[in-house]
Amino acid sequence: MLDGIDTPALLLDAEKLRRNCAQMRSRVLSQGVVLRPHVKTAKNVEVAQMALDAPSGPITVSTLREAEYFFDHGFRDILYAVGIVPHKVPRVAALTRRGARVSVIVDSVEAAQGLVSESEKAGVRIPALIEIDSDGHRAGVEPESQRLHDVAEALGDHLLGVMTHAGDSYNCDGPAGIREVAARERKATVSSALALRSRAHACPVVSVGSTPTATFADSFAGVTEVRTGVYMFQDLVMAGLGVCSLDDIAISVLSSVIGHQEEKGWVLIDAGWMALSRDRGTQRQKVDQGYGVVCDEQGRPLGDLIVTEVNQEHGIVARRDGGEVDFATFPIGSLVRVLPNHACATAAQHAEYHVLRDGKPVETWERFGGW
Amino acid sequence: MLDGIDTPALLLDAEKLRRNCAQMRSRVLSQGVVLRPHVKTAKNVEVAQMALDAPSGPITVSTLREAEYFFDHGFRDILYAVGIVPHKVPRVAALTRRGARVSVIVDSVEAAQGLVSESEKAGVRIPALIEIDSDGHRAGVEPESQRLHDVAEALGDHLLGVMTHAGDSYNCDGPAGIREVAARERKATVSSALALRSRAHACPVVSVGSTPTATFADSFAGVTEVRTGVYMFQDLVMAGLGVCSLDDIAISVLSSVIGHQEEKGWVLIDAGWMALSRDRGTQRQKVDQGYGVVCDEQGRPLGDLIVTEVNQEHGIVARRDGGEVDFATFPIGSLVRVLPNHACATAAQHAEYHVLRDGKPVETWERFGGW
Repeated sequence: MLDGIDTPALLLDAEKLRRNCAQMRSRVLSQGVVLRPHVKTAKNVEVAQMALDAPSGPITVSTLREAEYFFDHGFRDILYAVGIVPHKVPRVAALTRRGARVSVIVDSVEAAQGLVSESEKAGVRIPALIEIDSDGHRAGVEPESQRLHDVAEALGDHLLGVMTHAGDSYNCDGPAGIREVAARERKATVSSALALRSRAHACPVVSVGSTPTATFADSFAGVTEVRTGVYMFQDLVMAGLGVCSLDDIAISVLSSVIGHQEEKGWVLIDAGWMALSRDRGTQRQKVDQGYGVVCDEQGRPLGDLIVTEVNQEHGIVARRDGGEVDFATFPIGSLVRVLPNHACATAAQHAEYHVLRDGKPVETWERFGGW
Repeated sequence: MLDGIDTPALLLDAEKLRRNCAQMRSRVLSQGVVLRPHVKTAKNVEVAQMALDAPSGPITVSTLREAEYFFDHGFRDILYAVGIVPHKVPRVAALTRRGARVSVIVDSVEAAQGLVSESEKAGVRIPALIEIDSDGHRAGVEPESQRLHDVAEALGDHLLGVMTHAGDSYNCDGPAGIREVAARERKATVSSALALRSRAHACPVVSVGSTPTATFADSFAGVTEVRTGVYMFQDLVMAGLGVCSLDDIAISVLSSVIGHQEEKGWVLIDAGWMALSRDRGTQRQKVDQGYGVVCDEQGRPLGDLIVTEVNQEHGIVARRDGGEVDFATFPIGSLVRVLPNHACATAAQHAEYHVLRDGKPVETWERFGGW
């Protein structure tokens, strides 16, 4: 049924995608909160449209190439969620002049001053969110800190609100821990917004994000928008966290069996790190899924077979326990699918999705890359 | 000087590339052996031409897309060095009919029979090398084994020779260990070729490969060709093995400083795994280089600063010893370069090379991906 597709190739199950998108939309919108999907996972218009159910935004992007691409495809309300630097402001300004509403993020007085100065030069006002560090894992100012107020002063009327990324939610071991991270994420941003408002700053936007916290947060009170991207496809890291089941994972890498090393219990496939990525996101989880869970051509997981090692265009499939493999079920040239550790990373290795409906490939959707 | 380049971006120092290519060509050709560079590292015509000093081949490829692309750009003698499966034979046959001399590899009777049967259907003879397992790390038949002879019988007049990939050379801790791997690589292939010839098989080609063994092998006696790709760019894994120095590494990722976390000693940059890859090839070496060695804008390594953690579009730069960082030397928007763990993996994350001569960007060379 998938014989016409050259391997390795990225498959996308349209029904699972639709279901994942509908669930998150329903969850977030039912709380009265804006869903601002992160399109860095999919980098594709059709997927973003399915996530939004509305073609003009709001979306989150991780590169200015994404901002430009999605603007050219009808999206208008775009948050560029990587710290802005002065020399990138002209590209944002150009989009703004073309009618986009691009907002950016800063976490220092220096970056805020650079934004203000460069946007004045460009003759546009670019709204900015102050990034809050809610879990110590990356960027951002401490919640309610003096630096928060200093950055707000430096931004002046560019200030739009506050945001955080709860990246620590990826390191939890299940829903209970994720709920705690979500509570900290909410508290860090909502308290910072209140602190800014108490000093007469307008701070209408309170933006939080990550697929685990979006899924399990007990409350979004005070939050105005949720940013999340991986949920559209889901992946093994999310399954390991309890965010989804294996059956919810909408993408997989189709691969051909190219050899056997019977003495070692290895099946060799033509999906290496070029097709799967080097991401080992489940390595620190309770169940280490190697470079991916191996499924049959229909997408059903095959017992405890995982990809244990990869080279550029080779993957080694073996049983997790090192046990025997029934090689007769894997003739040379037969097809398997591999579920990815990290949807963003695996999808990034491909230029197109082979879209399946009822298990059959019906169309291809393009992805783009670059910055 | 690099201000005009949007970050992150892949830089290629043309002089270092030229020097790396000339050294390997000189080393291999002086032994009377064919150099069949692996173009999977560069995936670019200009680089392949510089490696070869002749535009028609021979080259090694890891995908049929590479075979087709390089054929369209004038290369004629192409080895596809990933085990062939029956359903890929029609693409090879199509190239053959267009005038390419594409050879393939097999390591089982089943794959050999599939090749013969499919190429007969297509009306072409496709020469094949039998892959020998010289170090137990991946594919291949045991040297001089019964399976070797069985595969040769199944190939019949498709048999062209034997080949191996000494992937274990990447796991050595220096030149002495690499010389031992190289000796095993040579012995495994040369003895297998002799075994085949003793049974009246024509086995003209004896092909070995890997940048470390190509660099340090004491002898190529009996070997007819060497396949190697990483040497063109070199990388931190090769430097850790003693194959090159940091100064020989021809590619780096240009990145902007986007933030500081002064209490933590972190500089944040806009090169995450999307720009650097997730490859952690130096993790098991004596010196773990994290996700890459950080250099100034001119490419000079900055003491012991490395990229310690990455997200999709964020990198965290810190001192290897966790010590203090002089943040004044990293203003927001300033530029750094990151040397990659693994040239193949990092380059694969980019669609073009910004080529530098005398430190100045003079042109861009395109790369391609896909299968």
